[in-house]
Amino acid sequence: MLTPEEVKALAELGSATVYEASGREGLVPLSFLRFPPGVKAAGPAFPVLCAPGDNLGAHAAMAALKPGEVLVLAQAAAEPVALVGELLATQAKAQGAAAILVDGAVRDADELAALGLPVWARWVSPKGAKRERLLGLGVPVFLGGVEVRLGDYLVLDGDGVVVVPRERAREVLQKARERAEREGRLRERFAGGELSLDLYGLRERVAEQLAQAARLREEGGHG
Amino acid sequence: MLTPEEVKALAELGSATVYEASGREGLVPLSFLRFPPGVKAAGPAFPVLCAPGDNLGAHAAMAALKPGEVLVLAQAAAEPVALVGELLATQAKAQGAAAILVDGAVRDADELAALGLPVWARWVSPKGAKRERLLGLGVPVFLGGVEVRLGDYLVLDGDGVVVVPRERAREVLQKARERAEREGRLRERFAGGELSLDLYGLRERVAEQLAQAARLREEGGHG
Amino acid sequence: MLTPEEVKALAELGSATVYEASGREGLVPLSFLRFPPGVKAAGPAFPVLCAPGDNLGAHAAMAALKPGEVLVLAQAAAEPVALVGELLATQAKAQGAAAILVDGAVRDADELAALGLPVWARWVSPKGAKRERLLGLGVPVFLGGVEVRLGDYLVLDGDGVVVVPRERAREVLQKARERAEREGRLRERFAGGELSLDLYGLRERVAEQLAQAARLREEGGHG
Repeated sequence: MLTPEEVKALAELGSATVYEASGREGLVPLSFLRFPPGVKAAGPAFPVLCAPGDNLGAHAAMAALKPGEVLVLAQAAAEPVALVGELLATQAKAQGAAAILVDGAVRDADELAALGLPVWARWVSPKGAKRERLLGLGVPVFLGGVEVRLGDYLVLDGDGVVVVPRERAREVLQKARERAEREGRLRERFAGGELSLDLYGLRERVAEQLAQAARLREEGGHG
Repeated sequence: MLTPEEVKALAELGSATVYEASGREGLVPLSFLRFPPGVKAAGPAFPVLCAPGDNLGAHAAMAALKPGEVLVLAQAAAEPVALVGELLATQAKAQGAAAILVDGAVRDADELAALGLPVWARWVSPKGAKRERLLGLGVPVFLGGVEVRLGDYLVLDGDGVVVVPRERAREVLQKARERAEREGRLRERFAGGELSLDLYGLRERVAEQLAQAARLREEGGHG
Repeated sequence: MLTPEEVKALAELGSATVYEASGREGLVPLSFLRFPPGVKAAGPAFPVLCAPGDNLGAHAAMAALKPGEVLVLAQAAAEPVALVGELLATQAKAQGAAAILVDGAVRDADELAALGLPVWARWVSPKGAKRERLLGLGVPVFLGGVEVRLGDYLVLDGDGVVVVPRERAREVLQKARERAEREGRLRERFAGGELSLDLYGLRERVAEQLAQAARLREEGGHG
């Protein structure tokens, strides 16, 4: 298990860097809204498999999740029904959740943003859930085909959501840190006017197209 | 008819609470953008049935709507054509409209946000409308299959749009107020660490799954 | 070619006004996200035809684009793969690009917003691109079926993206300025309570519907 400092580092590194560091694995191929704007989060997953349009599992999870965990609500079939609103988010915050990820809708969007607990959801809708069945608590779930198990690490930000298997967490964190350092150095050089064509050794590969572009400028007088 | 104070209360209660208070009826099953960010509104509807891609009805509505009303622009077939831009929104504001709801696109998005009149629309596009036909002014329209008649109340916010039939407005408002008070008390208790499983009497129903989650934690060493 | 002041004027006029001024031509029929929020831009296009999911062309473009140009990245088939992230945007900013338009995804969304170089993209995703092939640099590309050639002018804002053929740039700018002045005068009159029905001479055309709306109000007692 990662330390709280390591989890915080994962969040700061962000989903794109972590995804690259893990060998381009674990990307959840879904688009999410996030509340409040600009927020980032990371943490071990507490996955729940809800019946479609039913949030009994979200209520149950409040008694089972541990501080620092990311509550992951999957539905047996994803529907734009609000599985989480202000009252459940208030509970999750009081129980110490790091974030909530919903493969479904949320409601009370403005109140969620004001509450401050980071929430990722596919849709917003006033439509309320049933409270009848719970298919599994702490069991593995699938988000857009990607498995999330109890204790797997999630990295969530404005780009999307990435899953890091718990067995690879420390290795991926290390590689992500190395990648971020490398990118920090490159960013400075690019800001100073150097080009990736040169630093990555790509210029030869596109020499013909660079010549073509120069010709097109010449012919069009756009230059 | 509701008083201005009652209409303001509807807006403050919000679409999700009003939808629940009405027995989960009247939800418009469409996603809307809103301008400016964070705004809420409510009011009696002034519905207009536009020909597809034609906003002659929006121009006509400016001479017919009353202060406090929500201008509702439906199209015989919803297209991503801008039925409203800065000039029509300026007129609607000057005529005292409470808000504009467009089952279509708007344009001048930044100017709409700056103008301040609350606007909900399905899309944004520079594509302009024709100005040739008007199918009905003040007639009932349908938004995603949900009927909106002259004088029915609309509640619009970040979650979406809910319609309250004019005959039920006072009853639904009363129930929504009761619901909001109940939720306010619950919110405080949840913020203090109490759980909906206990307050709603659901714990027994998920006892087996809670035990399962504890076993999964044990086996995985997560926790 | 337009002067820098004229290009700035195009950006200020905005996509909807320029689209109307060009006779309703050149509208790119796609929805874009923009970074940072609220930004506007304009400039001559530097178009690149990327292989699907491959951003070698974006790297090559950094060595070929001129200050003030809008980098346009088209894919032979548009996929939600990130063709641009913080490092490429940093290069583009250092090379003086006016903006980046991507018919694909971007990543590092928060960093792009902080960097400040205006970016329009169809999607956000952590998913990274290949760096293998480049189909054409400076060649004409098509965005949603609309052609963009080297030196054609792009106008980008919160409403979307409009293309002005380079041959028509000065004529369209002149017409857009006239339109904006006309609309400025109308806006003042509308804000003062005058109606487009009267100023546009449309009242007669909707006289029957106005009478119908008055009758409906009477019958329903809404008013």
